[in-house]
Amino acid sequence: MGKEVERAKIAVMKANENNKVVMVSSGDPGVYGMAGIVLEIAAQEKTGIPIEILPGITAASAASALLGAPLISDFAVISLSDLLTPLEKIEKRLELASQADMSIVLYNPKSQDRIEPLTRAYEIMMKYINPDTPIGIVRQAGREGQTAKITTLKNLLNEEIDMVTTIVIGNSATKTVNEKMITARGYNITN
Amino acid sequence: MGKEVERAKIAVMKANENNKVVMVSSGDPGVYGMAGIVLEIAAQEKTGIPIEILPGITAASAASALLGAPLISDFAVISLSDLLTPLEKIEKRLELASQADMSIVLYNPKSQDRIEPLTRAYEIMMKYINPDTPIGIVRQAGREGQTAKITTLKNLLNEEIDMVTTIVIGNSATKTVNEKMITARGYNITN
Repeated sequence: MGKEVERAKIAVMKANENNKVVMVSSGDPGVYGMAGIVLEIAAQEKTGIPIEILPGITAASAASALLGAPLISDFAVISLSDLLTPLEKIEKRLELASQADMSIVLYNPKSQDRIEPLTRAYEIMMKYINPDTPIGIVRQAGREGQTAKITTLKNLLNEEIDMVTTIVIGNSATKTVNEKMITARGYNITN
Repeated sequence: MGKEVERAKIAVMKANENNKVVMVSSGDPGVYGMAGIVLEIAAQEKTGIPIEILPGITAASAASALLGAPLISDFAVISLSDLLTPLEKIEKRLELASQADMSIVLYNPKSQDRIEPLTRAYEIMMKYINPDTPIGIVRQAGREGQTAKITTLKNLLNEEIDMVTTIVIGNSATKTVNEKMITARGYNITN
C-alpha cells in the first residue's frame, strides 16, 4: 500500500515544481484507483496545483459487458480488501446490500494471504440471496487473456478466484439465457 | 419506454436478416442502458445472432471525476425512476444503502412529472446519513455544458435537479477540500 502513497507524493511534488504530470491508474482512477490519494496528498501539501481527473471504464462495467447485462438495474460495488477497510465494515455492507436485492460487484475478492473475506462474503450472501442466482466470474476484464464464466451463487467458493478477478452477483431478476447473464429491468417485451 | 423496446426489436430483426447492426447507448450500455433489452429481445426471438457489448463510462464515473474522488471506496448505484421499478423497492434499497455507510449515486433523480421519489430519497437518507455529508450535483456529465456543484445532504432539495442530473452522496469519510469531494480511503499519508 505504501507504494500508492509514495507514487502520489512524487506526482504532487513534481507538479508543484511546475511540471505537467500524468498519473496512470487502471480502470477508473476514481473507483479504488489513484484519484483519491492524489487529491488527499495535494490537499495535505496545500499546493494550489490544478488536478484534472479523466474517468475510465471501471471493472464493474468491463466485466458486465463480457457477462451480458447483469448491472442494468441498481447495484452495489464492494471491495473485499480489508487492508484499508475493517472486515466488520465490509461485512455490514454485504449484509445490507444482500438484503436490498441489488446486483453486487465484488472487487479484490481474494489474494494468496487473504481468503477469509471471500468466505465471509459467501456466507452472508447465502443467507439472503437465492443460491441459484446467476453469478459471473471475470478475470483480467478488458485485458489480454480475459476470461468470463457464469455459474450460480452456491458454487462461488469452487471457482478459481484471485486479485484480478471481478465477481458479479445478479439480483432476483437475473437469468442466464444463451450463456449471457441478463438482469430483467421490467420492460414489457411481449408482442 | 416503448421506444427502447421498439429500437431493440428493430435492431435484432435487422441483425437476424444478416446485417451488422450497432445499437448506440449513452454512458455505459450495461448500466440502465440498451444492452439488457437487446439481449432480452434476442433471447425471446431465439435468434442465434452473436452480440458483443462494448462497455462505456457510466455517469457515476463521469460525475465522480468532475467532483473529485467521492467513489474511491464502496458505493451503491440507484435509479430513482419508478417507471420500471416499484417505488417501494427503490425506497428499500435506499434504506439499506444509507445504513451501509457507502457512497450513493442517484441516477434519473427527477423529471417534470416525477418528483416524489427524490423527496422520499431525501427523507430516507436524512434518517441515516449526517446532514452535513458532502454531496455532488452534476448535470450533463461528460457532455458539452457539463456543470458540477458540491453542497451538503441537507441542501439536496434546494438544488436544481432534472433527468440529466447525477447526484453523488458521500459517506462518513467524505470531505470537501479545495472544492473537491474526497472520500478518504484510509491511507496513512502523514510523513
